Amino acid sequence: MNLILLFPDDFNGDKNHVRLQGRRLQHVLTVHRASVGDSLCVGKAGESIGTGTITRLSETVLEMAVQFDRQPPLPLPLTLLLALPRPKVLKRVLRSVSALGVKRIVLLNSFRVEKSYWQSPVLCRESLQEELVAGLEQAKDTVLPEILLRPFFKPFVEDELPGLAAGTLAFVAHPTAVRDCPRGIQKAATLAIGPEGGFIPYEIEKFIQQGFTPVQTGNRILNVETAVPAIISRLY
Amino acid sequence: MNLILLFPDDFNGDKNHVRLQGRRLQHVLTVHRASVGDSLCVGKAGESIGTGTITRLSETVLEMAVQFDRQPPLPLPLTLLLALPRPKVLKRVLRSVSALGVKRIVLLNSFRVEKSYWQSPVLCRESLQEELVAGLEQAKDTVLPEILLRPFFKPFVEDELPGLAAGTLAFVAHPTAVRDCPRGIQKAATLAIGPEGGFIPYEIEKFIQQGFTPVQTGNRILNVETAVPAIISRLY
Repeated sequence: MNLILLFPDDFNGDKNHVRLQGRRLQHVLTVHRASVGDSLCVGKAGESIGTGTITRLSETVLEMAVQFDRQPPLPLPLTLLLALPRPKVLKRVLRSVSALGVKRIVLLNSFRVEKSYWQSPVLCRESLQEELVAGLEQAKDTVLPEILLRPFFKPFVEDELPGLAAGTLAFVAHPTAVRDCPRGIQKAATLAIGPEGGFIPYEIEKFIQQGFTPVQTGNRILNVETAVPAIISRLY
Repeated sequence: MNLILLFPDDFNGDKNHVRLQGRRLQHVLTVHRASVGDSLCVGKAGESIGTGTITRLSETVLEMAVQFDRQPPLPLPLTLLLALPRPKVLKRVLRSVSALGVKRIVLLNSFRVEKSYWQSPVLCRESLQEELVAGLEQAKDTVLPEILLRPFFKPFVEDELPGLAAGTLAFVAHPTAVRDCPRGIQKAATLAIGPEGGFIPYEIEKFIQQGFTPVQTGNRILNVETAVPAIISRLY
């Protein structure tokens, strides 16, 4: 936790004082091993970053005087479409993607996505947010990504995707694509990454119909956890 | 498992027939759900890739007629120096790095590496190999990376590193570096990635003395699992 993310409830009515318990308190006690008077990096969810000076610290409560003086890092101008991975992998990928600065993530169905994944408790709002917050705390960011759950491939791609991808460079990662994934594009993009085993030809065809270019990153098949940061880091 | 990696013991004296049990048999039964007559991608450890046709398959044994006709993918010309991460993270990073095609990995001590990590059973030869093999099976590669364990930072950097890094571009990832990590270098490189919290200034200085250039990939602090594929993918 390189930044402690603060939410409206933490402020108790005073915009320069926060009171924390639970996970963040425990982290400050056991990982930061901080004391009264120490300063920690803090950020207001969706807003600016600053410093919290500890005014009270016990086993049950952490209080800080906070001030905010700078903006969070720039977001990546990327919408990520991700075939829903298995829940354990999803948690790690969301954390990673949130840390990388992606602000819109679509979790998408695909032929090779196991149906049971859509029933996972990881997909509840609180559980998703937990991973996204962890990514922001890692990367010193404050702006929570938006997550869209789209359990029906065809209507999403036909009806909603054209609007989401409008005005962006659109790529679908595909191991047998002819074109290399471009580097350092400096432009808004929409990137689709398939499930283990890849999108099926029908799905690739649907993306192509929507203006997506299939791209590959070499002749190695990477798992989702490795492919996601590898491709995003190549694009930006 | 996109490729079944075969070792000398699997061959039972005949270079075109293998007999497998255990983990690989279970995978073929439960994930591939294959039958007699099906063909699977196979590779001989350290050698070529080909096809295995299933000649016998039961709950206890898998036999295949194998032939080899092509080379594994090109390795990355990269030596990765990695401050030893915590064991659970190490396993995932090794798998990822092996899939990416890195062939020499140095697990290195650093001031912020917890001493207990060096006692982890994950560091035994068999356990390391298990993760590396999983990475090769994912990426359809056959060449096992070499792993060097170096629990003493100073003697490694002063005495051994000059030889390892000779003739390569040498970079140390450092969030506050002035220079951006280069893209698509197409050359042999040595890359050092620090622990959570980063290398300390003394360590960065030691790398600089050995000709390393500190580089950064933006103002976000990434965890090791995200940073490793992100930086490697930017370099190559």
